[in-house]
Amino acid sequence: MLKVGIIGVGTVGTSVAQILKDNADVISARTGVAIEVKMGIVRDLEKVRDLDIPLSDNVDDVLDDEEIDVVVELMGGVEEAFEVVKKALLKGKAVVTANKALLAYHRYELQELAKDIAFEYEASVAGGIPIINALRDGLSANHIESIMGIMNGTCNYMLTKMTNEGVAYNDILKEAQRLGYAESDPTFDVGGYDAAHKLLILASIAYGIDAKPEDILIEGIQNITQEDIAFAKEFGYAIKLLGIAKKDGNDVELRVHAALIRKEKMIAKIDGVMNGISVVGDKVGETLYYGPGAGGDATASAVIANIIDIARAGKKAPMLGFDKPLEGLLRLKATDDINSKYYLRINVSDRAGVLAKITKVFEIHNISVETMLQRPSSESSANLLISTHIALEKDIQDMIKELRTLDFIKSAPVMIRIV
Amino acid sequence: MLKVGIIGVGTVGTSVAQILKDNADVISARTGVAIEVKMGIVRDLEKVRDLDIPLSDNVDDVLDDEEIDVVVELMGGVEEAFEVVKKALLKGKAVVTANKALLAYHRYELQELAKDIAFEYEASVAGGIPIINALRDGLSANHIESIMGIMNGTCNYMLTKMTNEGVAYNDILKEAQRLGYAESDPTFDVGGYDAAHKLLILASIAYGIDAKPEDILIEGIQNITQEDIAFAKEFGYAIKLLGIAKKDGNDVELRVHAALIRKEKMIAKIDGVMNGISVVGDKVGETLYYGPGAGGDATASAVIANIIDIARAGKKAPMLGFDKPLEGLLRLKATDDINSKYYLRINVSDRAGVLAKITKVFEIHNISVETMLQRPSSESSANLLISTHIALEKDIQDMIKELRTLDFIKSAPVMIRIV
Repeated sequence: MLKVGIIGVGTVGTSVAQILKDNADVISARTGVAIEVKMGIVRDLEKVRDLDIPLSDNVDDVLDDEEIDVVVELMGGVEEAFEVVKKALLKGKAVVTANKALLAYHRYELQELAKDIAFEYEASVAGGIPIINALRDGLSANHIESIMGIMNGTCNYMLTKMTNEGVAYNDILKEAQRLGYAESDPTFDVGGYDAAHKLLILASIAYGIDAKPEDILIEGIQNITQEDIAFAKEFGYAIKLLGIAKKDGNDVELRVHAALIRKEKMIAKIDGVMNGISVVGDKVGETLYYGPGAGGDATASAVIANIIDIARAGKKAPMLGFDKPLEGLLRLKATDDINSKYYLRINVSDRAGVLAKITKVFEIHNISVETMLQRPSSESSANLLISTHIALEKDIQDMIKELRTLDFIKSAPVMIRIV
Repeated sequence: MLKVGIIGVGTVGTSVAQILKDNADVISARTGVAIEVKMGIVRDLEKVRDLDIPLSDNVDDVLDDEEIDVVVELMGGVEEAFEVVKKALLKGKAVVTANKALLAYHRYELQELAKDIAFEYEASVAGGIPIINALRDGLSANHIESIMGIMNGTCNYMLTKMTNEGVAYNDILKEAQRLGYAESDPTFDVGGYDAAHKLLILASIAYGIDAKPEDILIEGIQNITQEDIAFAKEFGYAIKLLGIAKKDGNDVELRVHAALIRKEKMIAKIDGVMNGISVVGDKVGETLYYGPGAGGDATASAVIANIIDIARAGKKAPMLGFDKPLEGLLRLKATDDINSKYYLRINVSDRAGVLAKITKVFEIHNISVETMLQRPSSESSANLLISTHIALEKDIQDMIKELRTLDFIKSAPVMIRIV
């Protein structure tokens, strides 16, 4: 018998307790032991819940209970959760968490504290997809060349609808909010921060890179319009919000942004709220993992897989996959040094000489144009839709800065990277 | 230091030895120990090899070496390999194998023998894709509702080429043989037997079902023509060779056959030599795993992941995922009892009254037609391309038997299941 305490019994916590009960037959057949939720910790004991586990509002009722083997942290937040899991580890309890923000900030301190104790976090990245399992254990023979992931279902849902149904950004955002896919303040999702937290976790497993969200390039999908979608379609691309980790010698690029991606690639075929992560290993080549990135039951599936791992074998691998990180060799590449192809949408006054002036600015900044489309956007203005050959991020940023100072540029140019 | 003996140093064995050397930095960082190949066993010591590990042609040089912790079985075949891994287990050595045929026949005896010893086999299904890892460990909280996999790259390559380039079956088979994707006797691949071995392994992990290849429905892709491909395209399907495991109450269907599958499904989008496996869990929903199903380095990536698992934690889970199988409850469904929609191609003499006679035979066998196309195939004959509503396998088989006795049926009807 393995005893579990759940700290934070919201959607996911309720699913964890419910599935441990519903699927007890298969879970005990797979582990050889029964798994019991001994206690759940909630903020508000008065709230009516459809759940028959003992509840308390005092976290110490789990932390101090010597019979509890595994603490499942589902309270969310960063610092308070960090204090709670630290205490659990110090008491020798295994920890399972779905908390990506906690890991984005504190994963190396936790790896240190969890030296001989199981600390698992499959649900923190891409919900029900066992991507931690695949990357840390399944691909462990490889140097990881790149990771490219659709890791935010909200953004993927919105971009898919914008592409397939021609809906405007603001309209689809409202629909996503109505369906519960997006929060009333949607910035965490549509601004790329949620995907960034997940990317940092994967980058630690792949590369041992200790970066925080503020160290890396994070952009969202807020500026994407139907013009961009139309351009993408015309040139054979899909637009996706991607988290990208890429090794280039001893440099590792980490970045989250909207990207134009050839529509033949498997990852471009992942639509709707689904998540998918492509991993390229130096020996295995490309593998890809697809599934639901959110939802109570899907996330609980991952949480419980970790509990079962612990029931079966205790700690099965170093928390972040490395006993001795390769950090000494690999370092985070500066954002300015990233190379990419770029797409630009520049709204200009529709008058003689403008194109010549713009192409001159491109030339000054070493940006070479691959394709250009001009489309009228109003009576007196036009959109220039431009894709470039490979260029340096710093050059593009400098060029955009210069473009913004020109009087015939009618609004800030929109840039999307092409991968 | 973990010491490994490799029995069978062909393409995969050579890759294993080479990658353990090439990627020693990342492998030892991930395991905390160095992994050394102490001995390789080959049949022919005279053969020139580009490899610097000690070699012998006597398998006992590995089995009797007390310093060797892990035996990697890559010799292939069934009974001889079974004897070798049995001896290894009896001597307390962990075993890693890529041998799907061995497992298709002896996995339950091996699970029994390997009770407290690690026995891993990630490479036996879908090469470099960590699908055993995902199914056994990552999705362990779920009752598995279905598994649907493209698990044979040769067939998928051939069907993709037939679809995209209009090439005839025999021509593409010759090309696949020239490229080394198909053997000179291609039956094992194109007849579905390779996929069946893999399906049986996955079915044991998902359901604890102890079936052998001869117990299940196995068909190949040999009868598929451009007529079928054209029909599929017209009605929005792709044709794939699928391994299917599906739970229906306490019955489990296991079957390998060509299938028409809606082209919007993720698994229908997997083209060329790539493999992909869709798994539906009752809690997580659908997840899908995509990657290279063959090749020395990709397969070796999976073999080494298992060696790393053993270096990190010894035995991390019961070999087939169950401590106590659920077999008592679940049983293999008889092939006759399978329900499906069906597509039929019937070549008939082009004369009056034939259609009426055929539809009468359909009616007698309770087969209800969903769509029908008639196309001339020569001056005096026509192809009827028919899709049915859901019907019973036994009824379809009986109907086909009856159709074959009719004088206006010019060749055996071709049937492809629709999933």
